[in-house]
Amino acid sequence: MTDTRLKVGILGASGYTGAELVRLLVRHPGVEIALLTADRHGGKPLGDVFPHLARLALPDLSRIEEADWDGLDFVFCALPHATTQQVIAGLPERLKICDLSADFRLRDVGLYEEWYGGPHRAPALQKEAVYGLTEIYREAIAAARLVANPGCYTTTAELPLVPLLAGGLISPDGIIIDAKSGVSGAGRAEKQANLHTEVSEGIHAYGIAKHRHAPEIEQELAVAAGRPVTVTFTPHLMPMNRGILATIYVTLVGGADAEDLRVALAAKYDPEPFVHVLPAGTAPATRDVRGSNHCLIGVFADRVAGRAILLSATDNLVKGASGQAIQNMNVMCGLPETMGLEQEALFP
Amino acid sequence: MTDTRLKVGILGASGYTGAELVRLLVRHPGVEIALLTADRHGGKPLGDVFPHLARLALPDLSRIEEADWDGLDFVFCALPHATTQQVIAGLPERLKICDLSADFRLRDVGLYEEWYGGPHRAPALQKEAVYGLTEIYREAIAAARLVANPGCYTTTAELPLVPLLAGGLISPDGIIIDAKSGVSGAGRAEKQANLHTEVSEGIHAYGIAKHRHAPEIEQELAVAAGRPVTVTFTPHLMPMNRGILATIYVTLVGGADAEDLRVALAAKYDPEPFVHVLPAGTAPATRDVRGSNHCLIGVFADRVAGRAILLSATDNLVKGASGQAIQNMNVMCGLPETMGLEQEALFP
Amino acid sequence: MTDTRLKVGILGASGYTGAELVRLLVRHPGVEIALLTADRHGGKPLGDVFPHLARLALPDLSRIEEADWDGLDFVFCALPHATTQQVIAGLPERLKICDLSADFRLRDVGLYEEWYGGPHRAPALQKEAVYGLTEIYREAIAAARLVANPGCYTTTAELPLVPLLAGGLISPDGIIIDAKSGVSGAGRAEKQANLHTEVSEGIHAYGIAKHRHAPEIEQELAVAAGRPVTVTFTPHLMPMNRGILATIYVTLVGGADAEDLRVALAAKYDPEPFVHVLPAGTAPATRDVRGSNHCLIGVFADRVAGRAILLSATDNLVKGASGQAIQNMNVMCGLPETMGLEQEALFP
Amino acid sequence: MTDTRLKVGILGASGYTGAELVRLLVRHPGVEIALLTADRHGGKPLGDVFPHLARLALPDLSRIEEADWDGLDFVFCALPHATTQQVIAGLPERLKICDLSADFRLRDVGLYEEWYGGPHRAPALQKEAVYGLTEIYREAIAAARLVANPGCYTTTAELPLVPLLAGGLISPDGIIIDAKSGVSGAGRAEKQANLHTEVSEGIHAYGIAKHRHAPEIEQELAVAAGRPVTVTFTPHLMPMNRGILATIYVTLVGGADAEDLRVALAAKYDPEPFVHVLPAGTAPATRDVRGSNHCLIGVFADRVAGRAILLSATDNLVKGASGQAIQNMNVMCGLPETMGLEQEALFP
Repeated sequence: MTDTRLKVGILGASGYTGAELVRLLVRHPGVEIALLTADRHGGKPLGDVFPHLARLALPDLSRIEEADWDGLDFVFCALPHATTQQVIAGLPERLKICDLSADFRLRDVGLYEEWYGGPHRAPALQKEAVYGLTEIYREAIAAARLVANPGCYTTTAELPLVPLLAGGLISPDGIIIDAKSGVSGAGRAEKQANLHTEVSEGIHAYGIAKHRHAPEIEQELAVAAGRPVTVTFTPHLMPMNRGILATIYVTLVGGADAEDLRVALAAKYDPEPFVHVLPAGTAPATRDVRGSNHCLIGVFADRVAGRAILLSATDNLVKGASGQAIQNMNVMCGLPETMGLEQEALFP
Repeated sequence: MTDTRLKVGILGASGYTGAELVRLLVRHPGVEIALLTADRHGGKPLGDVFPHLARLALPDLSRIEEADWDGLDFVFCALPHATTQQVIAGLPERLKICDLSADFRLRDVGLYEEWYGGPHRAPALQKEAVYGLTEIYREAIAAARLVANPGCYTTTAELPLVPLLAGGLISPDGIIIDAKSGVSGAGRAEKQANLHTEVSEGIHAYGIAKHRHAPEIEQELAVAAGRPVTVTFTPHLMPMNRGILATIYVTLVGGADAEDLRVALAAKYDPEPFVHVLPAGTAPATRDVRGSNHCLIGVFADRVAGRAILLSATDNLVKGASGQAIQNMNVMCGLPETMGLEQEALFP
Repeated sequence: MTDTRLKVGILGASGYTGAELVRLLVRHPGVEIALLTADRHGGKPLGDVFPHLARLALPDLSRIEEADWDGLDFVFCALPHATTQQVIAGLPERLKICDLSADFRLRDVGLYEEWYGGPHRAPALQKEAVYGLTEIYREAIAAARLVANPGCYTTTAELPLVPLLAGGLISPDGIIIDAKSGVSGAGRAEKQANLHTEVSEGIHAYGIAKHRHAPEIEQELAVAAGRPVTVTFTPHLMPMNRGILATIYVTLVGGADAEDLRVALAAKYDPEPFVHVLPAGTAPATRDVRGSNHCLIGVFADRVAGRAILLSATDNLVKGASGQAIQNMNVMCGLPETMGLEQEALFP
Repeated sequence: MTDTRLKVGILGASGYTGAELVRLLVRHPGVEIALLTADRHGGKPLGDVFPHLARLALPDLSRIEEADWDGLDFVFCALPHATTQQVIAGLPERLKICDLSADFRLRDVGLYEEWYGGPHRAPALQKEAVYGLTEIYREAIAAARLVANPGCYTTTAELPLVPLLAGGLISPDGIIIDAKSGVSGAGRAEKQANLHTEVSEGIHAYGIAKHRHAPEIEQELAVAAGRPVTVTFTPHLMPMNRGILATIYVTLVGGADAEDLRVALAAKYDPEPFVHVLPAGTAPATRDVRGSNHCLIGVFADRVAGRAILLSATDNLVKGASGQAIQNMNVMCGLPETMGLEQEALFP
C-alpha cells in the first residue's frame, strides 16, 4: 500500500518552535517527518537536544546543506529571522513552505528593512507570500505555495481586532494592546534576561513602543480598517512557560456596545474549530489554552462610556506559532484543518 | 453501523484526576464518555468547573445517585478515599471498574484500617481487586473486574524497585525513597498549605515516616522480595504543577554493580511502551514526562561502594493516576494498551 | 532608662499584611510590638501561624476583645473590610491608628456603600480619616489620628498619575490602568482560585470594569485634576508572590511630551526616599522592589502621537500595604520617615 | 569624628553572591563599602548590572587591577573558582579576606587538584586558610586572616551532621544527603540549563555521585568523626530562586534514638543566633529562611528501626554564601556576630 502521507521537513528543529512542530506532527495521521535540520547539532539524534522527544522514530538532525529535498512535499522553516529569506529562496520551487520567522510577514519590503535592520533578500518571494492568519486568509492560504506564519503577539491581537475593524464596530484610532507573554516566546538562546532567577517572581515591560510585532499588527489592522492604523503595543515578560494574554482597549463607533462586539465576534468565530468567543462576563485565562491550538476571546464593557475591553488568550508556541503553522499546512495541502491539532489544553 | 466504543463513566469528574481522565479519554478512539458525576456540581456542564474542557461534546455533570448504570461498560472511580468502597460495592456486577482511590490498594484489610483510620466497607471486593501496576500485573489485570490503580508515589517508586528485588540484585533492607512531588497531587481542595503564596519559591518535606503510600510501596516490594520489607519514604512538596521525581538509594547484593541494575531494568522494560531506562550517565527530569504516560528511569553508581542510586520520573496525574488507569482499562477490555495515551510530553 | 519606643498593636496579625508589619516592625528601632491579635488563633504564638516569624520576642496572639489598649500608643488595623469600622470606632480616642483595610478610604460614604455592599458603620470617623498616600498627603498625615492606608493597586497607579494631573500635563480623560498583581494581594484565605495549581503557569484578568480599587483611584485623581475622573482599570492575577506592575496609558495635553512628564515626575519625587523616576528608556521591573518600600516609575513615549506610557512597580505588601502603613506611622508620630524601611529589594 | 567603620571591598560584585553581599552590607552599621570590582563591567555603576541596588551611595564597579588596596581593611572575594587563588595571593598581607569560592576550602591540595581539575596556585595560603563554618570553627575564624567560606550545600549538610558525628550519636557510614537547591546557586552565567523555560515546572538531579561539594562535606565530617567518611550526595535543581533543603538519612549508634539527636543538636545550637533546631514533629521549609541567615533543622525518627531523618534548610545566598561570609567577617574583626544579619525571612 502506498504511503500517501505528506513528507515534511523541519528546518531549525533545535528551537522551541521546532520541537513543538515535532510534538504535534508525530501524532498527525497525514504526515511523515522526513527531515530535521539543526546546524549546530548536525548528526545528533533529536533526543540529545530535546529529551522529551527521544524514543520517536525520526531521522537524526542534519545540517541544512546536507538536506535531500527530493523526498519532501512540505517544509516548515523555524529558523532565526534574517537567515530565512536566503534559505527559502534556495529551495526547489515545487516545495510548499510555511515560514515561522518574521521574514515574509511584512508585505512592504521597506518596512521590513526599517524594523529588521537589513536588506530584504528575497523581495520576489515576498510578493508571493500569503500571511498565515488562518481564520482570516483561509482561501488565499489554500492556494499559496509560501505562507508567512504570523507572530505570537500578532495572532493573539489580530483575531479579536480584525473582524471588529472590518465590521466598523470599533475605531481604528486609539487601539491599545497590553500583552503579557510567557518566556518560551524568547526562544532557547542563552540570555541572562531569560534565566529562571531573572524571570521568576516578577514582571516587566520590554520593547515599549518599539517591538517588531507592532508593524505586523498595524499591517493587518489597516487591511481590515481600509486605512492606516497606528497601535499602542506594550509587551510584558512574565514567569510562565507558555501563553499570551492580550488585554485590548478599544473605542466603540456607530452606536455599538460591548455586547454588540461580542455577538459579532461570536458570529464570525462560531464555525471555527480553534477560536472561541466566551459568554458575556467570562474572561479567558492562558492556563485554559496551554498546549492547545485554541484562542479564547472575552469582551467586556468598560466603565468609561463608549469603550470596551477585549481579552484574547493563546499558547504562543501553538496557535501563536507551530500549531497555526500546521493548521496552515493542512489548509495548503487539502487536509482536514484540525488534523493533528485536536489535543485539549494541559491543566493543571 | 454499531458504535462499538466502550461506554465509560467517570465518578468524581470535578477533581484533577477526573479532569485528566476526560482530557485523555475524549481523544481515545475506543471510548465514549457517557457519564460524568460530581456531587457538588450536579447539573452543571463540565466547562463550569474546568474551562479548559469546555466545548467538548460531553454529558453534563450529574449526581451519583442519578446515574444510569445500564448504558455503561466501564467506570473510573476518582472519588475521595473512604467513600469509594461503598460506592463501588453498590455498582452492578457486570461493570468493569478502575478505582483511582486508595480504597482497594492494600490487600490486608487490617493494614488499610490502621493507615486510613476506619473500617473497610467492602472486604469481599478487596479480595477480588487486582493491583493495577500495569507493567507488573498485566495478566491479572486483563482478567480483572476491579482494578485498584496505584498511587502516584508508589508507581514512581515501584517501577524501578520491583524488578531489581525480584531479580535479587538489591537488598530489601535499607531502601530509601526520597520523593519530590508537584502540587496537583494534593488535589483541588481549598487548603492554605496549597496556596500559590505558600508553595511557590520553596520546598519542604511532609508526612515524614508516616505517609500512607509507605505501606502500599512495602506491600509490593514484599511480593517482589519474597519477604517483608520496610522502606524509608520521605515525600516533599515543591512548586510545580505536575511531576514526581523519586531518588532512591539501594544496597547492591550478589556482586551486582550499578550497570548490572541498569541492564536488568532495561531488559525488563525495553518491550514496554511507557517505561524507559535511560542510557548510563543520563538522569531523568520530570519536565520530560509532563503530560505524558511515560516513566523515565536512570541508574547511577554511588561513590559509596556497594550502593546505587535510582531515579524515576513520572507525571503524577498521568502515569501516576489517570493515564495508568486508562492503560489498565485498555488491558481489561482487550484494547491496544497504548490507545489514547500516545501524546508526547509538553515541554517547555 | 525609659523605653521611649512607641508601643504598637497589630490587629489581624495572622494575615499576610499583618505578618509583613511584624517583619518590618521588629527591626524598627523606634517601636515595640506590644499586641498581636488574631481571633481564630487566640492564645497561640505567632510562630504557629507564621513559622518564618518564630523565635522573635513577641507577645502571643490574642483575641481582640482581650486586648489591653492602655499600654498602646499606636494601632495598625489589618482586619478584613467591613469589620474594621466597628472595631476602630470602639478604640480609645487617644490611640493613633493606621487602617490597612478599605473601610475609611472613600470619603463619600455613599460610594463606600455602593461598592462594598453595606452600610458604613462609622461615618463620623470617616470625616476624620486622612488618606494615607504619604508622598501626596504628608502634612495632613502628620496631623492625623486615623489614617486610611491606600490599596496596593491604587498606590501603584496614583503615584505617577497624581502629579501629572495636578500639573496639567495629562488629560483626565481616557486614562487606562492595566495592572498585574502577584498572589499575596489576595490574602491567605483558602480559595480554589489561589491554589498553586490554578495560578502558576498562567495569567488572567479579573474584576474587569468593576474592581473596588477603581473608585478609590478615581477619588484621588479627581482631587488632582480638580474635576471628576473615570478610569479604565483592569487588574490581572499572575504567578508571583509579591509585586504589582501598572502599565498606564495617558493622553498628553498642553503640548507636553513624554520627556516632560518624566522630568516633572522626577522633580516631584527626587527628594523622596521611596519613589524613584527612572532614566529615560528604562522600564521598572517588580523584581527590583521585592520586599522593599520603593516605587519605581518609568515614562515612555508612545508611537501614537500625543500619548505616553507610564510604568509603575511596587511590592504590594510593602509600599502597597504594610510598608506604607509604617511610613505613615513614622510621619504621624514624628519619627524619621524611612525608619525601619531601609531594606533593599531581595533579588534574585 | 573618625569613621571607625571597616572599609571593605567586594571582588566580583556582578554575580549573585556579590550582589547579596552589597544588599546586606549597605545596612551593616560597622561597614563601609569602599570597593566593588567586576571586570566585564568596569566603570559602570552597580545599578547597571543590578537595578535593585541602584540609588545606593556606592563606588562604581572597577577592574580588579585598578583597585586601591590601601584604603581597605577587609576583602570579600566572590570570584569564580580557580582564578581566586592567584588574586588572593596578590593581595597585601595586612588585608583580612573571606573567600566565597571553593579555592581554599579543601585542606588537601591534592584533593583540590583532583576535583577542580587544575593545579593549586597558592598552596602556602591554603595552609593558612580557616574553613568558615562559623558555628563550628568560631575560635579559629576569630584569629584567621583568610577564611574559606563553605559552599551552600556543605553548610546546609554539615550544620546538622557535624555535632552528631562528633558526639558519637550517628554512624559515619551510610550517610545519605539528598539536597534540593534553588537556581541562584548556579550563578548568573548564561546557560541554557538555567533558562526559565528549562527549570520551571520540573526537577532533576545533577552531578550525581560526582558533585564537587562531596569532598568538602567529607572533609568536615571526617574531622568530626575522627576518621575518613564517604557520603552519598545527590543535588537536585528545582524552580525556586533561593533555598536549599537537605534531607539526610543517618544510622543511629550507641542506643540513641531520633529524639536524642534532636536534643543534642538543640543543646549545641540553642545559644546560636542563626541555627535553630525545631520542636519534635516540625519540618523546616526553605520559604521560612528566604533572605535570612538562618538555618532550620528538624529531626525525625524513621520507620526503619535504628535510623533517623535530618532536615536542614538554608537560603543558599545568605547562610549558604554571603550571609555566612559577613558572619565570618564580624567574627574576624571583633564585631557582634549578628551585626547586619538580623533581617527576618521574606514570606510570602
